[in-house]
Parts: sequence; C-alpha cells; structure tokens
Amino acid sequence: MIIARVVGNIVATQKQEAHEGKKILLIQPLDLDGQPWGDAVAALDAVDAGVGDRVLAVQEGFSAMTSVGHVESPIDAAVVGVVDLVELV
Amino acid sequence: MIIARVVGNIVATQKQEAHEGKKILLIQPLDLDGQPWGDAVAALDAVDAGVGDRVLAVQEGFSAMTSVGHVESPIDAAVVGVVDLVELV
Amino acid sequence: MIIARVVGNIVATQKQEAHEGKKILLIQPLDLDGQPWGDAVAALDAVDAGVGDRVLAVQEGFSAMTSVGHVESPIDAAVVGVVDLVELV
Amino acid sequence: MIIARVVGNIVATQKQEAHEGKKILLIQPLDLDGQPWGDAVAALDAVDAGVGDRVLAVQEGFSAMTSVGHVESPIDAAVVGVVDLVELV
Amino acid sequence: MIIARVVGNIVATQKQEAHEGKKILLIQPLDLDGQPWGDAVAALDAVDAGVGDRVLAVQEGFSAMTSVGHVESPIDAAVVGVVDLVELV
Repeated sequence: MIIARVVGNIVATQKQEAHEGKKILLIQPLDLDGQPWGDAVAALDAVDAGVGDRVLAVQEGFSAMTSVGHVESPIDAAVVGVVDLVELV
Repeated sequence: MIIARVVGNIVATQKQEAHEGKKILLIQPLDLDGQPWGDAVAALDAVDAGVGDRVLAVQEGFSAMTSVGHVESPIDAAVVGVVDLVELV
Repeated sequence: MIIARVVGNIVATQKQEAHEGKKILLIQPLDLDGQPWGDAVAALDAVDAGVGDRVLAVQEGFSAMTSVGHVESPIDAAVVGVVDLVELV
Repeated sequence: MIIARVVGNIVATQKQEAHEGKKILLIQPLDLDGQPWGDAVAALDAVDAGVGDRVLAVQEGFSAMTSVGHVESPIDAAVVGVVDLVELV
Repeated sequence: MIIARVVGNIVATQKQEAHEGKKILLIQPLDLDGQPWGDAVAALDAVDAGVGDRVLAVQEGFSAMTSVGHVESPIDAAVVGVVDLVELV
C-alpha cells in the first residue's frame, strides 16, 4: 500500500455500470518526507476521502475490488484509509 | 487506474477465441498535465471507446477480465471509462 | 498487454508438471516504433507462436493462467495473440 | 517477496472495518548489502513484527490477503516473516 | 516469468505456518546475456532448486501460490523450473 495525497477528481459519464455513484479520486503518491514521487493514479474511494486528505491506497485489482465490496467492479486501485499519523523511528 | 489517450488499434487474427469480436486498443498513458509518459500498452475495450478519446484504464488481470464480463478472456488491461473532466485542486 | 517479438526458446527439464509439453518463449517488448525496450521476459505460448513473430502478451498471473486453460499452471506471462497490424493514428 | 526493514507505523482512524485492530507497518526495502533501495511502502503485519526488525514481505494483493487469513481485508502488501539470516554465496 | 540465478537462502524462524519446511531462495534476475539486472528477490522453491542454479521464476501471487500447491501459502514469487538452455535467435 502507498501513502498518497488526494489531488483531484475524475468525471467520467461513459463508464462501467459497476462504477455508477462512486467517486474516482486522483491521488499523488508521497515519499517518507511527505513529498510527491512518481505519477498520480486514479483510485476508487472506499472510505469517503476528500481532496487534500492524506490517504492509504491499494494498487492491485483483487484487493481494490474487495475494498469496495463489489466483486463486479473492475478497478485496480482504491483509497482504503485516511492517514492520521505516520510514526517514523 | 491510469488516464490515457487512445492512439491506435491492434489487429490480430491468430488469437485466443475469447478475444474474437473485441477491439484491442493501443493506449498512451498521460500525466497530470495531459502529457504522454511511459510506453503505450494494449488494452481491451470495455466501454466502446475510440481513437482520440481520453480514457480510464485498469492494468491488472483480475479487474480487466471482470470489466469485459468474461472470465475466460485472458487480458491484463482494459479501458473502463471515457474521461469527461479531470478536476485538479 | 504488451507488443513483443519472440526472440528465443527456453529449455527446462526440471520443472512444474503443469508445464510439460508447453513451449516457453523468450519475448522482447517493443515500443510504438517497433524498437526493443526493457528486458526480455519468459512467457508460455497459448497461440502457437514462433520465433520472429510479433505477438500480444499478458504479464499477470491470473490472466496468463486463464490463457492456457489450465488453472494449475503457475505462470505469470503468456503469448495470447499474433499481431498482424498496428494502426497508429 | 522482498527483504525490508520496519521503519515506522501508520495510524489511520477512518478506515476499512476489516483493518480494525491490525498494525499497519511502514517498511523500507533493502538490497543484498542491507542498504535501503526504492521507496518505503505500507504493509499489514501478519507475524507480529516490530520497528527495527528485518522482515520478509509480499507485495501483491491475493497473497497479502491470504497472509492475514481474512479474505475481506483489502490490502496489497503484508509482512509474512522475520528474517534471522540471509546466506549469500 | 524471469530467468534468474539462485544466489542465497533466507532463514526466518518467526514466519507464517504455511511456510514451514519450505526453502526461501534469494534469486538474482539475469538479462539475455546472463548478466545480473535489478535487485534480488526472495522466492519460495517449488522444484528443489539449489544455489548456483539458473532458474525460471514467477513474480505474481496467484501463480506463485499455485506453484507450491498450497492455497494458504502467502507468497508472491516462486522458482518454477531449472533452466537447461536458452536458445536465442
């Protein structure tokens, strides 16, 4: 799983029926210092996260589909938590 | 999931039976500024997208196979939405 | 899925029983200009492809295993089509 | 699987129900010389590992979900062993 | 699948029960010229390979778990063949 910042939303009208009514978030992966790294990806929202939130996201199909409790939802990334604190040692 | 631009089609006569009658699109991943990044990949079309469309695509087998509603279709990428708008904050 | 060129064969006598009688091809990924990129990978042959063919390949376990119709065959890559034509726009 | 060092914990209150009561560790991948490489990732703890431990981790959804014995837990990485010794030849 | 050289073993006492009695090998991916590339990864042994062997390995959870015939073994990489010969054309 990765830590990422929600940086936007994606609007898609012509899409899979299984995606209707679900938010597609654009998330930017962060490194240990909280700086952006790599490219942003699109992820379905499973925990009602919003723009600006620091979140925990999965990037694999089987787990992403499980997170939204919908085995017919063809996604490969999902936001599964809102991060309160990262404790580094 | 990634945002990509449909840049071409792939014609393959000698192929898996499960792929018959399905369009194989060539898609170019885009970054947040809409610029191409990385290499183009081949993806099955699940939403009737066409060349030039900006699309949402999955890049994992289980979710891709679910998107075309065909559990015997051996694919690892599929176009699952046509993007109308990307809202960046 | 990726477009690749078949560049060789791999011979392995000590192997999984599920692989007996199947060809293991060495394939070199190609970019949009048909030039090699990245490293070659090993893939099971699901469509009777041969050395020199330009092919379509999956690179994920669930879809690769489906392509050879053998749920007990532990592979993570397979050749699923022979490419006749790539139409770029 | 990768060898990694546990470098921190992640606290997330707003999260998937399936994650309640489970530790989310921040792990830093190590190379053969024991030096950090690449970016740290978040992984669920399946073997009661702690900060400072050198661990074995999976980075794929199906295996990660199996490791915590919970098919409804949407994760794509888990710590599955504490490494005692790496024998290089 | 990748071609790799077995370069070591990993000893882990505190681990998943499903891993008891199984060898965890450290394998170094090789390129077409037989030279090392990228980082070594840990893989469960499914064909009784040993240090020094050139092997065929899968790097995905579903196929790796199938290779050891144990659906409760949470791994994402496994050695599935010993390579006798690589025929390049």
